[in-house]
Amino acid sequence: MYQFLEGIQSPDDIRKLSFHELEKLAEEIRMFLIQSVSKTGGHLASNLGVVELTLALFKTLHLPDDGIIWDVGHQSYVHKLLTGRMKDFSMLRQYGGLSGFPKSCESEYDVFNTGHSSTSVSAALGMTRAAAILGEDKRTVAVIGDGALTGGMAFEALNDAGTYKKNFIVILNDNEMSIAQNVGGVSRYLTRMRTRPFYFKLKSRLEQGIGKIPKVGKSLVLLMKRIKDSFRYLLTPSTIFEDFGFTYLGPIDGHDIPFLCQVLERAKAIHGPVLIHVKTKKGKGYKFAEDKPTDFHGVGAFEIETGERNCGGETYSAVLGRTMFSLAEQNKNLCAVTAAMSDGTGLCAFGQLYPDRFFDVGIAEQHGVTFAAGLAKKGMRPVVAIYSSFLQRAYDQILHDVCLQNLSVVFSIDRAGLVGEDGETHQGVYDLAFLSQMPNMTILAPANFTEFSDMLAYATTEHCGPIAIRYPRGGNSVTYTGQSLKPFLPDVVSRGEHVCILSMGHMLSVAIQCKDMLADEGYSATVVNLRTLWPLDSASLQQLADGYKLIVTIEDGVKHGGIGEKIMNLYHGRARVLVKAHETGIVPHGKCEELYRACGLDANNIAAEIKQILSEV
Amino acid sequence: MYQFLEGIQSPDDIRKLSFHELEKLAEEIRMFLIQSVSKTGGHLASNLGVVELTLALFKTLHLPDDGIIWDVGHQSYVHKLLTGRMKDFSMLRQYGGLSGFPKSCESEYDVFNTGHSSTSVSAALGMTRAAAILGEDKRTVAVIGDGALTGGMAFEALNDAGTYKKNFIVILNDNEMSIAQNVGGVSRYLTRMRTRPFYFKLKSRLEQGIGKIPKVGKSLVLLMKRIKDSFRYLLTPSTIFEDFGFTYLGPIDGHDIPFLCQVLERAKAIHGPVLIHVKTKKGKGYKFAEDKPTDFHGVGAFEIETGERNCGGETYSAVLGRTMFSLAEQNKNLCAVTAAMSDGTGLCAFGQLYPDRFFDVGIAEQHGVTFAAGLAKKGMRPVVAIYSSFLQRAYDQILHDVCLQNLSVVFSIDRAGLVGEDGETHQGVYDLAFLSQMPNMTILAPANFTEFSDMLAYATTEHCGPIAIRYPRGGNSVTYTGQSLKPFLPDVVSRGEHVCILSMGHMLSVAIQCKDMLADEGYSATVVNLRTLWPLDSASLQQLADGYKLIVTIEDGVKHGGIGEKIMNLYHGRARVLVKAHETGIVPHGKCEELYRACGLDANNIAAEIKQILSEV
Repeated sequence: MYQFLEGIQSPDDIRKLSFHELEKLAEEIRMFLIQSVSKTGGHLASNLGVVELTLALFKTLHLPDDGIIWDVGHQSYVHKLLTGRMKDFSMLRQYGGLSGFPKSCESEYDVFNTGHSSTSVSAALGMTRAAAILGEDKRTVAVIGDGALTGGMAFEALNDAGTYKKNFIVILNDNEMSIAQNVGGVSRYLTRMRTRPFYFKLKSRLEQGIGKIPKVGKSLVLLMKRIKDSFRYLLTPSTIFEDFGFTYLGPIDGHDIPFLCQVLERAKAIHGPVLIHVKTKKGKGYKFAEDKPTDFHGVGAFEIETGERNCGGETYSAVLGRTMFSLAEQNKNLCAVTAAMSDGTGLCAFGQLYPDRFFDVGIAEQHGVTFAAGLAKKGMRPVVAIYSSFLQRAYDQILHDVCLQNLSVVFSIDRAGLVGEDGETHQGVYDLAFLSQMPNMTILAPANFTEFSDMLAYATTEHCGPIAIRYPRGGNSVTYTGQSLKPFLPDVVSRGEHVCILSMGHMLSVAIQCKDMLADEGYSATVVNLRTLWPLDSASLQQLADGYKLIVTIEDGVKHGGIGEKIMNLYHGRARVLVKAHETGIVPHGKCEELYRACGLDANNIAAEIKQILSEV
Repeated sequence: MYQFLEGIQSPDDIRKLSFHELEKLAEEIRMFLIQSVSKTGGHLASNLGVVELTLALFKTLHLPDDGIIWDVGHQSYVHKLLTGRMKDFSMLRQYGGLSGFPKSCESEYDVFNTGHSSTSVSAALGMTRAAAILGEDKRTVAVIGDGALTGGMAFEALNDAGTYKKNFIVILNDNEMSIAQNVGGVSRYLTRMRTRPFYFKLKSRLEQGIGKIPKVGKSLVLLMKRIKDSFRYLLTPSTIFEDFGFTYLGPIDGHDIPFLCQVLERAKAIHGPVLIHVKTKKGKGYKFAEDKPTDFHGVGAFEIETGERNCGGETYSAVLGRTMFSLAEQNKNLCAVTAAMSDGTGLCAFGQLYPDRFFDVGIAEQHGVTFAAGLAKKGMRPVVAIYSSFLQRAYDQILHDVCLQNLSVVFSIDRAGLVGEDGETHQGVYDLAFLSQMPNMTILAPANFTEFSDMLAYATTEHCGPIAIRYPRGGNSVTYTGQSLKPFLPDVVSRGEHVCILSMGHMLSVAIQCKDMLADEGYSATVVNLRTLWPLDSASLQQLADGYKLIVTIEDGVKHGGIGEKIMNLYHGRARVLVKAHETGIVPHGKCEELYRACGLDANNIAAEIKQILSEV
């Protein structure tokens, strides 16, 4: 079925192909990706966009001596396909199967693991400088999207790399999008640049060529440099990247393999850092993905012919959107901040109705949080909606700018706990640990949609100081609704006598299942929905635990530094405590059910453990 | 003595003065600052650099309706002096006295607290947009140094602000320095710009003027815009800031008050974001500070006539420098990374001898850490030397790029624990909590210089995976040296029978004092220097605690999420545990001894508490 693709085992096989054959191969790759991802789900649009770019890189670099670091990494499917992993695509993003991101443990061709945005230039520069120190003639190329470029650390890296004296190649994969539409000055700037003719100043090669003539050469170079410097600003357009110290090549059609190869060869010969500006089309070659790249960014299984997808049921994100909508009417000070996650966090509609009170700052979590601190300082009530694992980027801003000043910023933390198929870089298992070490912070966790919207209403009106509400990816699994006790005291869902289970947020469904399983074995359990996870209310917790042989805490977060550990301390010398949480923060990809089971956080496992302890006591 | 200065109670008084009088006032401010800081110590050079800039801002803005956010904030002395706090300067940076950084609790003129670098543009934009939403005609101006500009979050903020449609002023205070010499492409770029003539494109005002003519106006504006856009790159120099969407004004002599005021007035009239590039001289007006601005950045008391300072004794930082020096000879893969702290961390000399293996990335902790991950991935052994509180910026990079990949990066964490006079934004009390929640991380803490250099040797050669060594600001307080047991098992410093004190790092001196105090009361204490703080070695900890009625842990870090809390869990159901740590991470400025006392972490306090518990048991 695949004339060329099936013969590709390694980059060597690609270097042998003619440009014409590469173009055929590109078609086959697209066909394969659409077929494969339509069954497994995954990141489709971004991969369709980099087919030719990947082929050109494989043709001109010498992998695995050279390396490619794919920023964010979800556009590495083509790379994986061409490095001996075609057969593994049926298990893409599934438990025990192929990861959707580069993983060194999978292949020597995955030279650096990525997942979060904007890390590639830093890592590639580190690897490049290491090779130089070790005397190895190996290059590491960073491929970074225009969205990832708005992340501050990418600029930190460009600033540093701009003064490097040897060859270092950064490829800007400009598809005019991050996950969603890009925002900000840089994006506007790139849009302008995309329409310019291809542009390349030959300075380096020219200078070098002349520099080789002894004696006369050097001063001639200096003279030329001086002339160039004075005329440069007057006569030629200069780009941001040149201002940073890079040689700029571009913009280039990212779907033209021969031209890409030609420019890459040219780039390899340049001394000093080079930035190649490549224009690509997200979703290229699949109509539905070209039309709606955002919908086909991370996608579940879909119908190839119609592009139809199963959109699933109600989600916490949708509830956030709706609740913000209704709260904004009464509360004129309410506003929302997100970091390139307006779709994912459910805030799109809010942004459309209240454009003046909605701020999508781009992939820029640090700025987003301190910006919100500024809003709060002036009396606004900002809700910062960011996924748990991306919020890690703003640790210092939450601590230094929000918590130390005790500002009333609401953190609406989506994708808290396991997220499933995106795997270890995206699991939201650290927020409880890092937020609970910060002063003035309150953390709530709803067990169902109603509680979530009640908590939002409370956080945006009555509460003073920083407050976080954390909730899982996707939908609801608990139908039980207790009475809403403000400010969210523990809710006793069921009463028993042998064990008291303190459940946090969405783990309530597991806790209730546990209770039912224990009942079958003759043990009765009290189940408590904690609601407020931090700070601990010692009085109510003491009271709750009274008379039980065993207290169990269940949280979807890391154990060390987590809430269970702190509850255990509270009961020190008073009661036996079993803390159920993630023993390690490294949780691979797979379906959430499988992962909870593997982590021992499913009802079966916990019930068995409780039974074991109760039978010993 | 101060003809003008003593009459200044608020910005109103400044607006009344003529330019000539303001120049006189500037002289007096300099005299006062030099006198005052020579006695109390503090940040001198940066404040001498912004005297005229502060006066110009006070003259043209309407404080406190308008506000100024001083990035980093240690250059806010002039601002404090002019807002009614002259009398408090004798207590500058002392316990209960004036903070060396802006603090909203001190004055309504301190509109946003700062301390860490690169936050000002984000916060000012937030406050500006909030004012616009609330319908208030108030502006918040950000003043950011060229050093702070290399911090990624400043770029995130400029990117966002670049598309703002209303007036927003950022002042780039370019003194060609962060704390030390600047690095990177942006710095080189600014240096080039400093030599250009003053430059200002009238576009906005011109466009606006014409835009007001109805009907014809709009299309004329569009036409002009199109003409301008096509000619712009050909005819006029464009700056990075304009590429981001800012109107650029500069460069301007930052010591010329009338011109500064004129440009500020012009900036206020511009629609959209404006960046004013101001050239200042760090240390201006005090010879010794002008000559050696780095020495007079943060300074202790000094002799005005000679510039002589008491440099104090041996420090951990100096030991780092020396040890790196000697290790680098044998270990060709050893290298060092810092983020604009090469002086402070003691790595200057190392950098001079091994320029190829020393990387000062500028104020860019995020990039620095991932860059080090890249170095490590290729087989280098990077030592990342960053102060504890600044390392917070790289939380996600340590977790996502180093720990998840289990890379052998050594974190040499200076200024861990209380730092004293810099106060709450700089106290290094979170590192133990945030590092111990990350997978694969090992944390060591030396109790003296010998241990520190042994640990460095171990970390850079034998250890695999991420490892952190944390040590306090300044010198040594413990002379005791036990045997160095690799890999740094707990060292029993003294044996007793009533209580077992587990001490972490430099808190050993407190633990030993405690033991002596308790001995006077008839209690004998075992004192253990833990050395390896994380992960906990359950076996040896169980053994150590055997037979004691009370275990005490002492750490210089926050209690919640800290190491003591985790040790307490280990002993759950086995022994009574007293965890001594900071109950809150908010610790103000003052001498460390005073602060430890205030936090209950001095020997007196701890010994009394232990005695109390022992007498009850």
